[in-house]
Amino acid sequence: MSQSNRQIRLAARPQGECKPTDWEHVDAETRAPGEGEFAGVTKLISLDPAMRGWLNDVRSYIPPVGIGEVMRAGSIVEVTASNHPKFAVGDHVVGTFGVQSHVVSDGRGALRVDPSAAPLPTYLGALGMPGMTAYFGLLDVGALKGEGETVLVSGAAGAVGTMVGQIAKVKGARVVGIAGGPEKCAMLVGELGFDAAVDYRGDDVRGALRAATPDRVDVYFDNVGGDILDLALTRLNLKARIAICGAISQYNNETTVQGPANYLSLLVSRARMEGFVVFDYARQFPEAAAAIAGWIGEGRIVTKEHVVQGAIDDFPETLSMLFRGENVGKLVLQVA
Amino acid sequence: MSQSNRQIRLAARPQGECKPTDWEHVDAETRAPGEGEFAGVTKLISLDPAMRGWLNDVRSYIPPVGIGEVMRAGSIVEVTASNHPKFAVGDHVVGTFGVQSHVVSDGRGALRVDPSAAPLPTYLGALGMPGMTAYFGLLDVGALKGEGETVLVSGAAGAVGTMVGQIAKVKGARVVGIAGGPEKCAMLVGELGFDAAVDYRGDDVRGALRAATPDRVDVYFDNVGGDILDLALTRLNLKARIAICGAISQYNNETTVQGPANYLSLLVSRARMEGFVVFDYARQFPEAAAAIAGWIGEGRIVTKEHVVQGAIDDFPETLSMLFRGENVGKLVLQVA
Repeated sequence: MSQSNRQIRLAARPQGECKPTDWEHVDAETRAPGEGEFAGVTKLISLDPAMRGWLNDVRSYIPPVGIGEVMRAGSIVEVTASNHPKFAVGDHVVGTFGVQSHVVSDGRGALRVDPSAAPLPTYLGALGMPGMTAYFGLLDVGALKGEGETVLVSGAAGAVGTMVGQIAKVKGARVVGIAGGPEKCAMLVGELGFDAAVDYRGDDVRGALRAATPDRVDVYFDNVGGDILDLALTRLNLKARIAICGAISQYNNETTVQGPANYLSLLVSRARMEGFVVFDYARQFPEAAAAIAGWIGEGRIVTKEHVVQGAIDDFPETLSMLFRGENVGKLVLQVA
Repeated sequence: MSQSNRQIRLAARPQGECKPTDWEHVDAETRAPGEGEFAGVTKLISLDPAMRGWLNDVRSYIPPVGIGEVMRAGSIVEVTASNHPKFAVGDHVVGTFGVQSHVVSDGRGALRVDPSAAPLPTYLGALGMPGMTAYFGLLDVGALKGEGETVLVSGAAGAVGTMVGQIAKVKGARVVGIAGGPEKCAMLVGELGFDAAVDYRGDDVRGALRAATPDRVDVYFDNVGGDILDLALTRLNLKARIAICGAISQYNNETTVQGPANYLSLLVSRARMEGFVVFDYARQFPEAAAAIAGWIGEGRIVTKEHVVQGAIDDFPETLSMLFRGENVGKLVLQVA
């Protein structure tokens, strides 16, 4: 008795913001797992700013999602049938299984997670790609030295930003976050221990950033691009490092990206700006996950997840929350 | 008997391109050297794109030239009187003596040069700041590995660009230069040994650059900024390094600088963009000068100087040649 596999497929390449017509909602057939495979039902789907980039037909660090293909997404499934030696019925498994209700996998790139060790959404956030991105972007690309340095992070209330700031605090740095709205800013300082937060929707953002960074900035971790990147470039210390993680403010631009007009401050400050892709660090993920899990256990890192209850069909609308800045921490869609 | 000291002083902060009224031509008094000083007459004045930046009242790597001050410039003087133990009458001395016909100096930052070892203009070019800039920008900031790598340099026919390309050839790299006009491009390939040259005034610059960089670009040495920087960003190899030396295309902008809209290719290519200031390497100048002098002696590096014969009063007009791209190699004003 086959069940239907609800899928979200890419119907058209979005121009600017994604429209409902860019997606196709499909009932596909399911199938039983073959030899060396397992089947699972989707429990949680990860929503990431990078997804917008995967929809453009341009050279990038990963091929674009093809028209008619199931939308690429990280997710957690519960195993319902298995012919795979490593995955048993009832296991929870994280992987890039796509936006669909039913999955058959040969287990490549899949990892069993333990729901008793951490809540499932945490495996898509602090212990998942956002946590890895924060860890390697801050410590390797940003080359944070720790005490005496100031870390500035944009998108600070997001999945990656919340982790960047908290890891930087663990390492002894002064930490300033940039986020949208007084609630997020209050959360960063009051709940996550940031030293200061700047509301980019506020009145005098430039003045607020200057006040928040009296010793300027040694590491700027950029998730947003645009005007905020330009503003951060005016606050660099000598030999500052800028880790380019993403540019959520620019992903929905229909035409060109806004380049950083203040990039010549790299020269004035003998600073560097470096891009990275977290997948390059895959071999070191276990080390980073262990460190982060330890800090969570010690109460030094608070995990923030924003769980939307819904169905596969709610994926497009949930995704758009990211670009409206409506999430706090890691945004996930929990599939009923 | 005091002679008059002809000086060019900054009269007003230029808006956009320098105008004649931005400069004041002054006859100042000369004086005899005091204890520990020497006096000299100016023979050669260096003209550098960076000079335009020194005129803006903004935070930079060096204080701006003040209104009413003698214009800052590197130059070579011949010593005419000396109470300094290290400099004798008849010596030629290079230093930052400013745009003036007569100099009195305590010798700080001054260096005696030997006109029998190299022509005097070479001490302002290949063996001076442009040579140092090329050497450290390419080898330290650009971290050129050598054979198997491709180096791209803009402003390739300029004082720094000619040296960047030739040092990269010495190190075994494939070298592509970007310059304005077929004559400069022919000179780069025919005379300086570049593997290819792209005329940025040509028809299909994008296509020409693609054809010239079949293995993409590992080190991009940027002297110009603007559209060319954006174009170079489309040709990066994985782990490419961009050395930001300057942005001559942007220095005369009245309002904002054109930021690199393609900067997210840093992320796609896991590449970095880094600014530098040659003065930071001052302790290593002797090592670099010795290396470059050796390559010149072996005939592996050709020095290119563009000597304008004139007077102190010709400084403003000679400076503007740089921004019109009228020089080939190091532009100097020889004072009669």
